[in-house]
Amino acid sequence: MSSVSPQSTPIYGKVALIGLGLIASSLFWAMKRGNLAGTVSGYARSQETRDTAREIGLCDEVCDSAAEACEGADLVVLCVPVGAMAQVAKEISPVLKSGACVTDVGSVKGAVIEAVSPHIPENVHFIPAHPLAGTEHSGPRSGFAELFDNRWCLLVPSEGAAPEAIAKLRALWEGVGSNVDEMDAEHHDLVLAVTSHAPHLIAYTMVGVADDLGRVTDGEVIQYSAAGFRDFTRIAASDPTMWRDVFLNNKEATLEILGRFTEELFALQRAIRMGDGEQLFDYFTRTRAIRRGIIEAGQDTDAPDFGRGTKSTE
Amino acid sequence: MSSVSPQSTPIYGKVALIGLGLIASSLFWAMKRGNLAGTVSGYARSQETRDTAREIGLCDEVCDSAAEACEGADLVVLCVPVGAMAQVAKEISPVLKSGACVTDVGSVKGAVIEAVSPHIPENVHFIPAHPLAGTEHSGPRSGFAELFDNRWCLLVPSEGAAPEAIAKLRALWEGVGSNVDEMDAEHHDLVLAVTSHAPHLIAYTMVGVADDLGRVTDGEVIQYSAAGFRDFTRIAASDPTMWRDVFLNNKEATLEILGRFTEELFALQRAIRMGDGEQLFDYFTRTRAIRRGIIEAGQDTDAPDFGRGTKSTE
Repeated sequence: MSSVSPQSTPIYGKVALIGLGLIASSLFWAMKRGNLAGTVSGYARSQETRDTAREIGLCDEVCDSAAEACEGADLVVLCVPVGAMAQVAKEISPVLKSGACVTDVGSVKGAVIEAVSPHIPENVHFIPAHPLAGTEHSGPRSGFAELFDNRWCLLVPSEGAAPEAIAKLRALWEGVGSNVDEMDAEHHDLVLAVTSHAPHLIAYTMVGVADDLGRVTDGEVIQYSAAGFRDFTRIAASDPTMWRDVFLNNKEATLEILGRFTEELFALQRAIRMGDGEQLFDYFTRTRAIRRGIIEAGQDTDAPDFGRGTKSTE
Repeated sequence: MSSVSPQSTPIYGKVALIGLGLIASSLFWAMKRGNLAGTVSGYARSQETRDTAREIGLCDEVCDSAAEACEGADLVVLCVPVGAMAQVAKEISPVLKSGACVTDVGSVKGAVIEAVSPHIPENVHFIPAHPLAGTEHSGPRSGFAELFDNRWCLLVPSEGAAPEAIAKLRALWEGVGSNVDEMDAEHHDLVLAVTSHAPHLIAYTMVGVADDLGRVTDGEVIQYSAAGFRDFTRIAASDPTMWRDVFLNNKEATLEILGRFTEELFALQRAIRMGDGEQLFDYFTRTRAIRRGIIEAGQDTDAPDFGRGTKSTE
């Protein structure tokens, strides 16, 4: 919660953020808000991102290599797309301090564990994590300290991870405002396929269809989007590199959920074709309850239209 | 726009609202804000809704039959589900005043014209309309004066409709804050299938799949919904009766768009299965542009997460 008070002593002496996009930059501002890290070093592959980070004061020190940023770090957070994890882990492996903790923020866990584990030295803890937070914006300027407030962060500790190291990482995520839960990698990847990966692919697809339709112009789609379509476009505007990597690395679970989705969609299409109003009505009534649960769990606002309000859209 | 000034003289002397849900109640408050109607009578089929309307001052007069509400009305607005339009039109037909205008707010136009037209007397203008505005809430208490501000209202005038009658109805919708456009019924139903009906069915389906999945609990789906899923649940919480009728009455266009959607989804699933990252990346890059267009057209907010903000979700 945002009511978390700043720590009197930081949880980690030095934290290294590898990759400086939405999650890393939000994590930086949230760690500063909570006094959770003594000093924070950062690295991004692109010179432009590093320049921006220096300009806006993102990280206490911006380094020109991942290894340099990780030297002496007590915690290393890998915030790069899933497909880039293996390479980065390999680069930083030789400089990792004994007793340090390596974590990540990737949206899939099985593939990340496979890619990163081989590069983690014996005396270093590897505790994969996934903060369920994000917006449709990306890049070093998109972060803000409140991103993780009241959101969930899932920890997926490897079998040999030390309880003290897990407890420290949990304290960090709680310190930036998150609720924390633990689960195994396989279950994580299935849960995320349902709550995130399949919805994103579906949103991308619907937006692609609308864009592609000869008889309805893009102008019409845009102009009349308030009728429902625009809700899809927000998540379909998310970072393409990140999402490409998510789908390539959570293939099985995503395809399983999409298979289920298509089956159900066909059943509803059939009900429409056959004029089975009762089946449609029952289905639509059931889905209302889920929305209610989400609002009661504090995971969304009950304000009409997400509380967009008239003013904010003008 | 909300900057529309109140009229010095109302556009219509008496307006009758048949059905008192989200759209009718918003229309009432917006007409009052703009001084657009001399007096407004209302009718709802359920006694409970009529009682609520009387309690909260919704309509100047709440009547116990549709015909009574329409007596002497200069404008009758049918705000009932599409499936109920024919019956209501039949009931009010005998009392319609010569020179009056009948309109509706239904989400499909072809089927409404078919259902209502036969009951419209010779000397009455029938000008179907569709305000592209709504929230996931329903019922007489859900309305608010700003609902139509900066949203679009589509008029679908029948061939014989008098230009003066169209101009008056246009002035009413502009008076409540809308932008107004005209198109024919067939095109309307296709545009809406893309921007609204298919997205709603897809959202209902995704929420249904999540609810139905044995290996992931409802609790997990709800708890971890911020990862993308919750955007779908808002529109999947819309009024089941209204949406059943939409799908049954815009069958062809909806099934056509869903067919296109399934084709595209299969192509993307195949790209995932084959590991074709380039195809995924290109697709996801293209969809970002549409989002940009929607924001530039003032049809959504650019604030991260729809501007839900931390505060509104706590």
